[in-house]
Amino acid sequence: MKTDFHFSKEIERAFKNDPPGQWMSPLPAGCLRLSSGYPAPSLVPSEEIKLAVARLLDEEQDLPLHYIGSPRVPQLKKFLQERMAQRDVKTTTNELLITSGACQAIDLIARILLDEEAVVAVESPTYMEALEIFRNYTDYYMTIPIDENGLQTDVLAEMLADRSAQGLPIPRLLYTIPTYQNPTGTTLSLERRQHVMELAEQYDFLVLEDDAYGELGFEERPRLLKAMDTQNRVIYVGSLSKVVAPGMRIGWVVADKRIIDPLSWFKKDLDHPFDQATMASFLEAIDFDEHLTRLTTTYKSKCAMMLAALEKFLPPTVSWFVPKGGYFVWIKIPDVDTSQLLQAAFDTGVAFVPGKHFFLNQQKGLEYLRLSFSYASEEEIVKGVELLGQVVGAYIAPTTENIE
Amino acid sequence: MKTDFHFSKEIERAFKNDPPGQWMSPLPAGCLRLSSGYPAPSLVPSEEIKLAVARLLDEEQDLPLHYIGSPRVPQLKKFLQERMAQRDVKTTTNELLITSGACQAIDLIARILLDEEAVVAVESPTYMEALEIFRNYTDYYMTIPIDENGLQTDVLAEMLADRSAQGLPIPRLLYTIPTYQNPTGTTLSLERRQHVMELAEQYDFLVLEDDAYGELGFEERPRLLKAMDTQNRVIYVGSLSKVVAPGMRIGWVVADKRIIDPLSWFKKDLDHPFDQATMASFLEAIDFDEHLTRLTTTYKSKCAMMLAALEKFLPPTVSWFVPKGGYFVWIKIPDVDTSQLLQAAFDTGVAFVPGKHFFLNQQKGLEYLRLSFSYASEEEIVKGVELLGQVVGAYIAPTTENIE
Repeated sequence: MKTDFHFSKEIERAFKNDPPGQWMSPLPAGCLRLSSGYPAPSLVPSEEIKLAVARLLDEEQDLPLHYIGSPRVPQLKKFLQERMAQRDVKTTTNELLITSGACQAIDLIARILLDEEAVVAVESPTYMEALEIFRNYTDYYMTIPIDENGLQTDVLAEMLADRSAQGLPIPRLLYTIPTYQNPTGTTLSLERRQHVMELAEQYDFLVLEDDAYGELGFEERPRLLKAMDTQNRVIYVGSLSKVVAPGMRIGWVVADKRIIDPLSWFKKDLDHPFDQATMASFLEAIDFDEHLTRLTTTYKSKCAMMLAALEKFLPPTVSWFVPKGGYFVWIKIPDVDTSQLLQAAFDTGVAFVPGKHFFLNQQKGLEYLRLSFSYASEEEIVKGVELLGQVVGAYIAPTTENIE
Repeated sequence: MKTDFHFSKEIERAFKNDPPGQWMSPLPAGCLRLSSGYPAPSLVPSEEIKLAVARLLDEEQDLPLHYIGSPRVPQLKKFLQERMAQRDVKTTTNELLITSGACQAIDLIARILLDEEAVVAVESPTYMEALEIFRNYTDYYMTIPIDENGLQTDVLAEMLADRSAQGLPIPRLLYTIPTYQNPTGTTLSLERRQHVMELAEQYDFLVLEDDAYGELGFEERPRLLKAMDTQNRVIYVGSLSKVVAPGMRIGWVVADKRIIDPLSWFKKDLDHPFDQATMASFLEAIDFDEHLTRLTTTYKSKCAMMLAALEKFLPPTVSWFVPKGGYFVWIKIPDVDTSQLLQAAFDTGVAFVPGKHFFLNQQKGLEYLRLSFSYASEEEIVKGVELLGQVVGAYIAPTTENIE
């Protein structure tokens, strides 16, 4: 048999990294899923999607099942343009591209903008799957720390000033999740949003605004970076995965036509018309704002449950950011390597994601873990946090004794 | 506003080409579609897919609408493994990867194997969308002519001998559609299939076998290159687009695990679970062989209709290959630039694809055009060919007069 294969240079480089998906440990049966960034089963509109498909195929027969043809595909685009307009982002049809989820959007953006010489600025911690994608294209990063108000733009400013003073390359792209960030649940303050835009102009870089959770605010809906973008520096990525159904794979990009054109070029043969027409058929039959209200009401309540349970069941040394929306609570357990807790947690019956997976340098974030309140029921959330409390308590007990 | 963007090196190189999709002219309303490589509307099982979705969501509720979770996704893989086994290709689960149609498969294969130094050998003419994908990765090609028995392997052998004599790089990959080829409808003879495998071994290259039409034989089903592959040199790409529905975007790759692993690596976040679970639900409810028989019976009849109409309505100087399956008839009109016929054909009410689009060097293939008998009804086929005959007759009339 053939003993060796000649891979492309880019891919040989990418292979130096760990394979993707390491963060996703297979869960023991019955383990409470405080790890999964999935929507709540009760909020996934499976019945409505069934009806949407029936209506779509009754009305259009084979049309949505060809490569192109369903009139509902342009309707989906129109719907997304209207949503963006409600958030103060006016778009023409050639400034918005529908993608197969946010991940295809991020991959296409990385593909057209990044090469092995490119520097990417990322939040630390950040969405691990975005890191997995970027690592396929470059090894050069700036990692900017996050606090309760999101990306620390003053630190970013210092780092950029240092780089330019030393003649080091400035990032081509800043990847940020400004609203209800994954994994920290933090939201970038308005002042910092303005600062990001000023720095982008001063140092001439692009901003990839990942807004996967942006419609899931418990109270308010922060102003989009894209809505503050007077220079077409922001590449906005949206997704219906968290607000409708991840499996439908509907995301989109809003950007300058000069960015959208090459994205379309490389996406051309990677479209998915049936999912798009089905989503359009679903959306035309519901009141999307009512749908969002049902989601945010539920997630707000589940989040409150989780926070109360954390107060009740975790030792006083444990701390977290209080989210204003989204899916996640980011928890710090001082002097504990959370990846060492994972097996004990599995054995006890609860799952979380160890913090290190959200960092490029996995030696960072050892004391952190991500809990999700989106998927588990309220009962499961309380039970899961109680079990986590037992695991943490058992782990740090010796230490605390020593202290006493 | 920002005046310039810094694109990646790979993409700057790709931009030197024409944008993809040039071959796809927008059709005038009512134009008979002898251009479209779409399945017949009557053969797209929209009603069965509607029922498949209903059954899927009734039984699994939200499961197939998450990123992962539907037990039907592994069932689809099992079904594809069984189909391959029936065609003498035994696979383990880590030798088969489901993709978003054949195009995602080809793009991922190009991505892991090709870079700007790679040479790709392609049939001439060949599937234009594969050319569009390869052109994003390299500028270096070997083009091997096709005759009524497919790829001319003796010419390939000569070219390879010349290249190695001159110390020129040998192709990393031969891209071939051996069965019911797009656009020529030709099928590679068994002798030539053996010759291809011998050359691959002798010159140490991989073979990408695109089998999108392989299940659509009117009589027989030729032996797959992958079934003759004793050295794991063949990367097989299959698709359900032509036999079920293109819009469902279900394709797959069968190859050595050392190829499948990197493909999975880059595909990871570009999966589409709902389409896969829906397809599995559709397939479990039908007899696939009966379904295929219905397809091949219909297409055989439509192809016969088209060939009879060509005999009847086109001048004797016009010639074509007689397909044994698939979707297409490849037609030669001597001394005519078919791209110059297109507007007249549109005006008359019939559409075809000019031959030049299937060649890397679009100065070739000017005398050819591709007709598809898959999408149009039998009446439309006959009428469309009659209209084409009128357009061709009007175009070559002066010449024939001069000859007389």
